[in-house]
This record gives sequence, C-alpha cells and structure tokens, in this order.
Amino acid sequence: MNQPPPGAASDLARSRIKDLLGGKQAPSGQVIVKGWVRTRRDAKGVSFLEVNDGSSLANLQAVIYESDPAYSIIKELSTGASVSLTGLLVPSQGQGQKWELLVHKIQIVGPSGPDYPLQKKRHSDEYLREIAHLRPRTNKYGAIMRLRSQCAWAIHDFFRAKGFFYVHTPIITGSDAEGAGEMFRVTTLPPGDNKPEEDFFGKVASLTVSGQLEAELLAMALDRVYTFGPTFRAENSNTSRHAAEFWMIEPEAAFFDLNDDMDLAESMIKYLVSQALEHSRDDLALFDRFVENGLLDRLENLVAAPYVRISYEDAIEILVKSGADFEFEPFFGADLATSHERYLCDHFGGPVIVHDYPSSIKPFYMRLSDDERTVAAMDILVPKAGELIGGSQREERLDVLMDRMIKLGMDPKAYQWYLDTRRWGGTPHAGFGLGFERFLMMLTGVTNIRDVLPFPRTPRNLEF
Amino acid sequence: MNQPPPGAASDLARSRIKDLLGGKQAPSGQVIVKGWVRTRRDAKGVSFLEVNDGSSLANLQAVIYESDPAYSIIKELSTGASVSLTGLLVPSQGQGQKWELLVHKIQIVGPSGPDYPLQKKRHSDEYLREIAHLRPRTNKYGAIMRLRSQCAWAIHDFFRAKGFFYVHTPIITGSDAEGAGEMFRVTTLPPGDNKPEEDFFGKVASLTVSGQLEAELLAMALDRVYTFGPTFRAENSNTSRHAAEFWMIEPEAAFFDLNDDMDLAESMIKYLVSQALEHSRDDLALFDRFVENGLLDRLENLVAAPYVRISYEDAIEILVKSGADFEFEPFFGADLATSHERYLCDHFGGPVIVHDYPSSIKPFYMRLSDDERTVAAMDILVPKAGELIGGSQREERLDVLMDRMIKLGMDPKAYQWYLDTRRWGGTPHAGFGLGFERFLMMLTGVTNIRDVLPFPRTPRNLEF
Repeated sequence: MNQPPPGAASDLARSRIKDLLGGKQAPSGQVIVKGWVRTRRDAKGVSFLEVNDGSSLANLQAVIYESDPAYSIIKELSTGASVSLTGLLVPSQGQGQKWELLVHKIQIVGPSGPDYPLQKKRHSDEYLREIAHLRPRTNKYGAIMRLRSQCAWAIHDFFRAKGFFYVHTPIITGSDAEGAGEMFRVTTLPPGDNKPEEDFFGKVASLTVSGQLEAELLAMALDRVYTFGPTFRAENSNTSRHAAEFWMIEPEAAFFDLNDDMDLAESMIKYLVSQALEHSRDDLALFDRFVENGLLDRLENLVAAPYVRISYEDAIEILVKSGADFEFEPFFGADLATSHERYLCDHFGGPVIVHDYPSSIKPFYMRLSDDERTVAAMDILVPKAGELIGGSQREERLDVLMDRMIKLGMDPKAYQWYLDTRRWGGTPHAGFGLGFERFLMMLTGVTNIRDVLPFPRTPRNLEF
Repeated sequence: MNQPPPGAASDLARSRIKDLLGGKQAPSGQVIVKGWVRTRRDAKGVSFLEVNDGSSLANLQAVIYESDPAYSIIKELSTGASVSLTGLLVPSQGQGQKWELLVHKIQIVGPSGPDYPLQKKRHSDEYLREIAHLRPRTNKYGAIMRLRSQCAWAIHDFFRAKGFFYVHTPIITGSDAEGAGEMFRVTTLPPGDNKPEEDFFGKVASLTVSGQLEAELLAMALDRVYTFGPTFRAENSNTSRHAAEFWMIEPEAAFFDLNDDMDLAESMIKYLVSQALEHSRDDLALFDRFVENGLLDRLENLVAAPYVRISYEDAIEILVKSGADFEFEPFFGADLATSHERYLCDHFGGPVIVHDYPSSIKPFYMRLSDDERTVAAMDILVPKAGELIGGSQREERLDVLMDRMIKLGMDPKAYQWYLDTRRWGGTPHAGFGLGFERFLMMLTGVTNIRDVLPFPRTPRNLEF
C-alpha cells in the first residue's frame, strides 16, 4: 500500500473541536486537531489561529509563540488552508473562549491563498449561492447543514418512538398524486424521440410530487408509516419559496381521523423545534443574532402553547369581520392567501390549525363530509412562515371515492391499486406532508429556500 | 366537523399488538385492538381469529365464544378484513402464544371477501410482485418492510454516533459521477422536442447515479458527512440484482485514508447486522425458516470475526494458484467476477476486504499510487452476497487529479467546482457506497432485489 499522505487520519488520537471545547477538563498530554483555518491574527511574538473542523460552530483558538519551531510557517497559514495541529489544550488567557490550543507542531495539509473566494469578510447570500460548493465552510451555511442533519435525525426519532415505520416510496412514478400536472418527465429516449412505448418503462414516467398514495398502501399493512425523501415540482417560477427538488416528510396512519392527524402534526413540530433548541442552540443563536432578532423567543413560543384549532368556515368569518383591506377577498370557497394566514396567526398570537376546507378546492383523496360541502383537511399556519403542514383524513369509502374521481374527470382504472386498499380491509386513515426546507426556513428565519438546500435546483440553475 | 367514521382512533386507549404480547402482565381492564384478520378458525361453540396490526410479525389470537353477542358476526370476519376488537387480555389456553384476547365486542371496519387476493395459502414471489400494493400484508413482505425501517434507523444511529452529518445531495444533476453514462434524462420538454436550451434547467439534466462528488464538497466543510438517498441506473438489464431506482448510503470523511475507510465500513456492517439481530430477531427468524436455513448463524458470523484484508494483487495470486476452473480467467487488470468473489470468501471462511485495485479498471477520483499501477480502492466481499461495499480514498492532489481526468478524456472545466476543493484547503479523504437493497438481500437471504423494495422499478415495469 502507499505511504499515508500528509494529514491522513490513521492516528486515532485526533480530537474533534466540539468535544474539546465541551469538555470539563483538558485532556492530559498532547492532542491532535485537524481542520480549516478561518483567520490568523499576528501580534508581537505570537500568532493566533481560529480553526474550525465542522463539528460545531465554534472555532478553536490556536496559539503559536515565536519561540516555537512551528512559528516558522505561520505566513503560509492563510484563510481556508487545512491544517493538522499538535499541542496542549490549556485554559485560555484571552476573552471569548474557555480553552485554547498551545501549538507545538503544525502541518499544512492543503494550502490556500489570496485567491480563496471566502476571505474573512461578510459575503452576500447571492454571492455565496454562486459558490455553493464552498459556502458550507462559512459559519452560516455550516450551521444550516448541521441543523438539517439534526432535524432529520429528530424526525426519525419522533416517528420511531410512536411506532411508525420508515418507508421508501418510489421516486419515478407513472401516476400524478396531486393532479397538478407540473411534473418532470423521466426518459432514456434520445432528445427529439417521441415513442413512449420504446422508452425505458414502456410508458410515460415522471418524478414524484408526493409519496402519499403509496404510503397509504403501506399504512394498510404496517399501520403507521412515514416517508422522508425527495419530491419534485417542475413549476417554472423563480420565487424565494420554490425549488424544483426538495425533501418531504409524509406520515400516514391507519385508524387515524383528522383529530389524531392534527395531534400528530402539532406534536411533531414541537418535538423538532424543542430538539433543535436542545441540541443545536449555538447554531440557532447565530440566526437569532444575524438573520432574525428574536428567533429563539419565537421558537420557544412555538413549543409552549397548544395550537388554536378553527374550522375554515370560522376562519373566513374572522377574516371578513376583521375589516382588513386584503388584496384577495376572503369568502367560503377561496384559498387562504398569505395575508390571510398572517392575519390569523396575528389574531391568535401563535400557530393556528385550520380544518374542514371546502371540497371544491381540495384533491380527490380527502374525506368528504356528509353534506359534501367540506373535506376533512387541515393546514397548520405558523407566524412568519405561513402554511407549514397540509394534511387530511383520506376517503376510505370505496363508492364515495370512485364517485369523486369520476366527477373530477379521473380514470378510476388507472388507480385500481389505490382503490383496492378500500376494497379489502380498508380503514379510516390520515396523514400530512411537511416540506423539510419550509420547516428549516421557519426554524432559522432564512427567507430564501436556496439557502437551506446544499445545492438548490431552480429554473435554469443546475450547477454542482 | 363530521361524525367520526367507524373505527376511527380518537379513543386513545388503542393498544398495539407488539406491546400487548411483549408485556409481562396483562393490562387490567378492557383493551382495544385494531388490525387485520389473517385467518379465522371455527370450532364448536368458539371461533379463533388471528389478527395482525403491522406492529410486529406476531398475530394476536382473539377468541370469541358463542355465548357472547359478538359471535353473531363471525361469518363476516374473513381474511383481510379490518376490525376493531374490545376485550380482555388473558393467559392463553392454547399452544403457541402466551396471551390471547377474550373478545366482547367486534366492529368490522373494512370488510373483505372471497375475492381478496391474499387468501390463506403460500403465494409465489412472482404472483406477489403483481400485487405489490397488497403484499406488505403478508408475513414475509411485512417483515422486509420492518427490516428496511430498522436498518435505516441503525444507519443514522451509527453515523450520528461517529460525528457524521446527514446531507441531502442533489437527485437531479448536470454531471455524471461514475462516467458510466447509463443515466435517466429529466426534462419538461414535450416528447419529440429537441432544444435543451429551452428545457427547465437550460441544459441536459439527469438523475444522479451517486452523491459522492457533492458529498466530497460537504466533507471539506463539515469534516464527516453521509448521504442516504435514492440513486438511479438506466441499465436495461432484467436481472435479479438490478433495479432502476434504489437507495444508497455514501459516507465521506475528511482526513480519512483507506485504512480508516475500511475500518468504518467494517464497523458499519457489523453494527447494522447486530442491531437487526437485536431489534428484529422475530422478523429475521422468518427468513431463517422459510428463505435461507442457517441465516441467523451466517449473520452472527458476520458480526463476530475481523474481516480479512488483502490486496487485489494477492487476491489474484490466490485465485491463480487455486487451480480452479473459473469462467473468467483471473489476472492483474481484470475485474473480480462473482465466482472469484465467492472463491475468496470460501477460502478465508468469511468476509474479505480487497484493496488497492489496478488503476486501469477504476474511476478518475480514486487516489493513485506512486507507481500509478494501483488506486486506493477497496471492496468488501461477503459470503453468498458477493460485493457489498465499494469505496476508495479520493485523489486530493490537484495536479494528479487533473492529469488523470485529461488522460480519461474528461473536461476538467466541467468539474471546476470539484477541483476547487483541491485548490483551497483540500485534505486526504475517503468514502464508500453501500447499496441499501443489496444489504437487505444479504441480511434476509432474499435473492431478488424486487422483493426488498416496496415498489420496484425495472425495465418496462412502473406500476403503483
């Protein structure tokens, strides 16, 4: 085998900065730290490095005295370089940190230079989007990536504790769950070719917009399931809230009605937020400081109180009676606009769950009320972010479901497999969808979806 | 709001069968169980139901005496029906179970009938693939779905404990990580149209074959990351081991060399298998009994011993010296064929890690040895399943990497973002890929990939 290259890790003694800084006592003896130089500050006879290794937001301050042989290479330690440092962890002399590393040995693993695009200064979000391959090396984007990971973990943790099984519903699909039609087509035919019967799947294939229909099939066997996977919209709109590719969480539970569904969704949001506050407080504090003042308070509020639940009809009445000058007039049968959502959250001073929407504005699979005027749908609206979750109790009655599909111009034959679950051993069931990036925007105060995705996909944007 | 439909769950008293059967004591008072009838057996004056609610492999035996009013509807309790049962959990009189439910009240939630496609008998895998929307209701496929969930959990658990962050690398991509060319194209142009510049992304877009390149970018900021997401191959081959859509786990770690990579991969396999043995023993025992006799022993062996590590060159020598009559002749520069992999595992009596492969048969991103004859690659071969993991230390030297790309006819300009991570603050790093379905096949003894995916996608097959 080759000689190990400089900086390779086979020495198991390497310590990670998060563990060093979180320790109560300094380790006895030398420690090895590996990471990236964020800044270097030279004073008389001494040089200070801020080193980050991605394990947390915090940098380790490394101190190199002129008297030490390691001092000879400090001029090469520019922002962005990767280094391996050996030294003693000692109580810090300076302000702002409890510990610092007294360096005895430095190895430059990967040099950097003045052309490194992330020099020490504040960069605009727009600039950083152009170098999305480097931006996770900044405080803000590193924090977002860690928060993504923390929240993904909490999602699995939450559902596992409640007896839900994680399922992988298909990404390539032959059906359109939302009936919205804005789907990407998947093909192996050469461009210009037009013979779907010769295509890979022998018919038109698309990228899924939702795993719900397949999750319903699995819930009729495993009782409680959830998806957590990528979903796609070929919506040609360049807004700050839309991406062509994003991740969704979609639980589906047999024997659940709309109340159970609202309980589940509310407790999930509270769990995710409280876990982030507990495990990622440093990362969140960065957003409180630089992105949205008061963020931590807003998040604490989200965990504290029960969410108000009102029917759509009552919500419309509140909006009408408000006398507010909305851009879109509120009336029974109208979608709630962003300004309506905001008004309702302000009105109640916190999150609001609106339920029982008009059947005329909701998809075929939602359970119809006896007077057919409403369906058992619910949306969770939260302050600042607006609609965070949309869910419903599903129509479990075969005749009612088929009737609705036919009225909407759908072909029940194409959904035979979906109808089969109502034909034999069907049960009342319910579920909802949470857009993972929408949640992260709500959690961090970040207002552009491009900044909570590692490599966002939007119209005419497919870099990296 | 509507009246709750029959069987809705708002009664929070519902117990899940896994919890009831796992309990040491019977709950005092009545319990409510909801699930699906697997079988009904009528005896004189008494009827026995086997009910499953998906929470585990085990059924609950429900007993209904003729003297009870509930007995009047037993004729309607056919296989596949969903039911809500109220009764007392009592020590079982019969063989095979510790507890049974003495039923006082039955509600048929969703009826079934003689046309239900999963009548009580053994069905062929082929038949069950055609009703993949119903097959999770069988013991075998229910067990597979629970094992998928258990193993996915263990993957997150393993990496989190080791300080790895979960990242979502993009599904739609403009680059080809493997250079294999067998990619699905993603488009919003109408079939027959041939103007990529008018397409959604303004250029040719494909479904990813690997998240590795993007994971490398993130590892240069977060130090340790892993992906767990869907990947795609438009390979038009109808084999039992290939699917067009499958899930992959790809860790990537800064400062890791090939040895660290092998350590990580070996400990991951052992962790996943040992966790499955601990948490999913009942489900695994089903496969030991009906799919592969001796499975549990094979799995225990996989956890027990350290994996042999040999160089590719030594492996070839063993194969040559064996005198065995291989279909494909082993020589330096040849890919290891399935029969070679099998021979090596037999030879060493367990898993084998083969490392340092000829550079001529491996992709551009693997780290070149000083004599350029080999690259720092490794594959883990396991008994029965063959190659389970492929990984490598990545080429971190900018000049060597660019040289290699040019020699392979690649355009370095198209990979500027990838090269940038070597330009500034690069580090030695390594990673590997584990196909989730390959792992599940290895874990269960199931030999067709179509049977470990909920809704498999293969050539000319896009149902559900």
